[in-house]
Amino acid sequence: MVLITRRATFSASHRLYNPALSEKENASLFDKCANPNGHGHNYTLEVTIAGTPGKNTGYVLDLKVLKRIIKEEVLDKVDHKHLNHDVEFMKGLIPTAENIAVAFWNALAPKIPEGKLYAIRLQETENNSVEYRGGAV
Amino acid sequence: MVLITRRATFSASHRLYNPALSEKENASLFDKCANPNGHGHNYTLEVTIAGTPGKNTGYVLDLKVLKRIIKEEVLDKVDHKHLNHDVEFMKGLIPTAENIAVAFWNALAPKIPEGKLYAIRLQETENNSVEYRGGAV
Amino acid sequence: MVLITRRATFSASHRLYNPALSEKENASLFDKCANPNGHGHNYTLEVTIAGTPGKNTGYVLDLKVLKRIIKEEVLDKVDHKHLNHDVEFMKGLIPTAENIAVAFWNALAPKIPEGKLYAIRLQETENNSVEYRGGAV
Amino acid sequence: MVLITRRATFSASHRLYNPALSEKENASLFDKCANPNGHGHNYTLEVTIAGTPGKNTGYVLDLKVLKRIIKEEVLDKVDHKHLNHDVEFMKGLIPTAENIAVAFWNALAPKIPEGKLYAIRLQETENNSVEYRGGAV
Amino acid sequence: MVLITRRATFSASHRLYNPALSEKENASLFDKCANPNGHGHNYTLEVTIAGTPGKNTGYVLDLKVLKRIIKEEVLDKVDHKHLNHDVEFMKGLIPTAENIAVAFWNALAPKIPEGKLYAIRLQETENNSVEYRGGAV
Amino acid sequence: MVLITRRATFSASHRLYNPALSEKENASLFDKCANPNGHGHNYTLEVTIAGTPGKNTGYVLDLKVLKRIIKEEVLDKVDHKHLNHDVEFMKGLIPTAENIAVAFWNALAPKIPEGKLYAIRLQETENNSVEYRGGAV
Repeated sequence: MVLITRRATFSASHRLYNPALSEKENASLFDKCANPNGHGHNYTLEVTIAGTPGKNTGYVLDLKVLKRIIKEEVLDKVDHKHLNHDVEFMKGLIPTAENIAVAFWNALAPKIPEGKLYAIRLQETENNSVEYRGGAV
Repeated sequence: MVLITRRATFSASHRLYNPALSEKENASLFDKCANPNGHGHNYTLEVTIAGTPGKNTGYVLDLKVLKRIIKEEVLDKVDHKHLNHDVEFMKGLIPTAENIAVAFWNALAPKIPEGKLYAIRLQETENNSVEYRGGAV
Repeated sequence: MVLITRRATFSASHRLYNPALSEKENASLFDKCANPNGHGHNYTLEVTIAGTPGKNTGYVLDLKVLKRIIKEEVLDKVDHKHLNHDVEFMKGLIPTAENIAVAFWNALAPKIPEGKLYAIRLQETENNSVEYRGGAV
Repeated sequence: MVLITRRATFSASHRLYNPALSEKENASLFDKCANPNGHGHNYTLEVTIAGTPGKNTGYVLDLKVLKRIIKEEVLDKVDHKHLNHDVEFMKGLIPTAENIAVAFWNALAPKIPEGKLYAIRLQETENNSVEYRGGAV
Repeated sequence: MVLITRRATFSASHRLYNPALSEKENASLFDKCANPNGHGHNYTLEVTIAGTPGKNTGYVLDLKVLKRIIKEEVLDKVDHKHLNHDVEFMKGLIPTAENIAVAFWNALAPKIPEGKLYAIRLQETENNSVEYRGGAV
Repeated sequence: MVLITRRATFSASHRLYNPALSEKENASLFDKCANPNGHGHNYTLEVTIAGTPGKNTGYVLDLKVLKRIIKEEVLDKVDHKHLNHDVEFMKGLIPTAENIAVAFWNALAPKIPEGKLYAIRLQETENNSVEYRGGAV
């Protein structure tokens, strides 16, 4: 088993706000992340696949294929978008890095043709990142 | 003369849109950057000062002082904000990286106590950056 | 389960030297790291927490809280310090990256309010790093 | 148990081509990576060892020793070389990142004097990387 | 005047060898860079343009346009190629980073529609880079 | 004229303290940088040379030569050292980044065999750096 990782970047805006909570609770919980006009990030996404390199190819999965899947299922839907308003598969989610990573997992896992999805890593700022491996760690 | 540079980061959203142009012209000119709900970036700002190190201090300018000026004049006003709506000193500007850099120069130059402001560098994504040196280069 | 990671940096000096060994053994073992006046590093610390994102917050743990814990329990005690002389909780330790990581784990683990401490990663130079996960790997 | 990681870099060229396949199959499978004159990369190699820090040393493994092993067993044989033609221990392999990582594991594992080899990570470009841990993950 | 910079990466192989010199002179001059089968790098290219931001656009030059020019004039011709054998506009050049930067300048300068080409920076490894500004510095 | 840059790293400790000033003035001026036991950094040094690529070599200056000069004149004297106590050519200097950069310029300039020394850039932390070009900028 070998892990292969493809990195991609996208730029998006978001706002952390839970409509089920009061303004005061939102302010206390999300602080400047609750700014009504939103703010944004350059996100770095890393998608890791586990599998056995093919005899004929030496590839776990052709990275051109993985690159296309990431583009079609994720980047085309989130790049230069507002994650609270513009993304169908994230409707109703508070777009924390944790929730984004899980949503990306769910969008990508059914499309991986060979090997299996192993991890989604999402870097939100140079100091903050999350990783989701589809269950317990 | 020695150049000293202080780096800082902030996260903001923006939209590239010129209200003096038609929707079609905006779309052709700014493409996905004109998305109505905006998008965002982790900006990296580098402020460079030119001066002579002090005899007693070995400093061109105490970086604690420069750090405070950058925080008060820029970061507190733009971090976790929407650059089109939330920033007084950028009202009416199309917030391209070029225009942001010039606006930051104008905000910072009068506050530099020693040495002189030499350059503002602003990195918008890992592939795009601008630099302004206050005039001709 | 989602992993969240907070990165922080600090600058410190240290000396690798074991008083139970002879000068010759120290020189052979620690080489230039045994320089009597010490040397230093910009350390990068990554603290990883495992947990389930909260329904109301989308957070495994509010990063503002984690940032404060890291500051109070670690950074305030080691930043701009000499790790052999100035740090109470490292007294008597040879401050190798391995030992520092374990000491930081012991300082941080009791303070993590939600989720559980999963890993401490410490980068000492661009070529050397260590990771401790609290037991077997 | 603590994990220690040593990073190294090397520059090499390679060509992805399987002589058992037709030209057309190679072109379809490996695309521009099949260019007859080859192309190249700055590879980043990370070697991770798992072990318990020694009482006398605070080291899992002296990084000077690990650095020497990586140099003698890997870097001296692949740096500034063509991976298809110049490297004895890779003869007959299609030099994908996956196959290179496994080949490096096999070259390094028998030479690790203390602790045990835990992972080989190989970064081929800023967007592509692989990791091998010697078996299942 | 504002400087804008677009970054791009490409992977290529090359060999440093001067056919006008003896084997011995080549070996002494270019050392392991003269390996007959070549070696390779991930090159990072930064193209800097100087100009005045347009009133209507806030752009010195639309980066979509600059990105296309860099792709058509440089990347399509050098990415995943051997710089000694596959690149028409570098025929006969010893492909040192210095010579590559000057060749890229000559390929790009006539195509820059607005502003003027200010600098070509080429990073060959994490330790080696060159910059060319079209004349004296 | 082409600029070539060689990057190197070293790890050292230092203390910012001016014996001509009172304890109180030192504390106010240098704050935590005045810690009596010192602290340290991983410094990144970039040395830039300006010159014309040789006809026979394509080199402004053979980087193997520049690497050796940087090692002999700077790295061997400062790496894993305390800059206040262990470095002959910095005796009596307050080792601010500004003063270190000027001292390195003075150590290197007489040794550059071809081309001319153009800039010394010294990065002290990820947020702080200085550049010296031997005079006015």
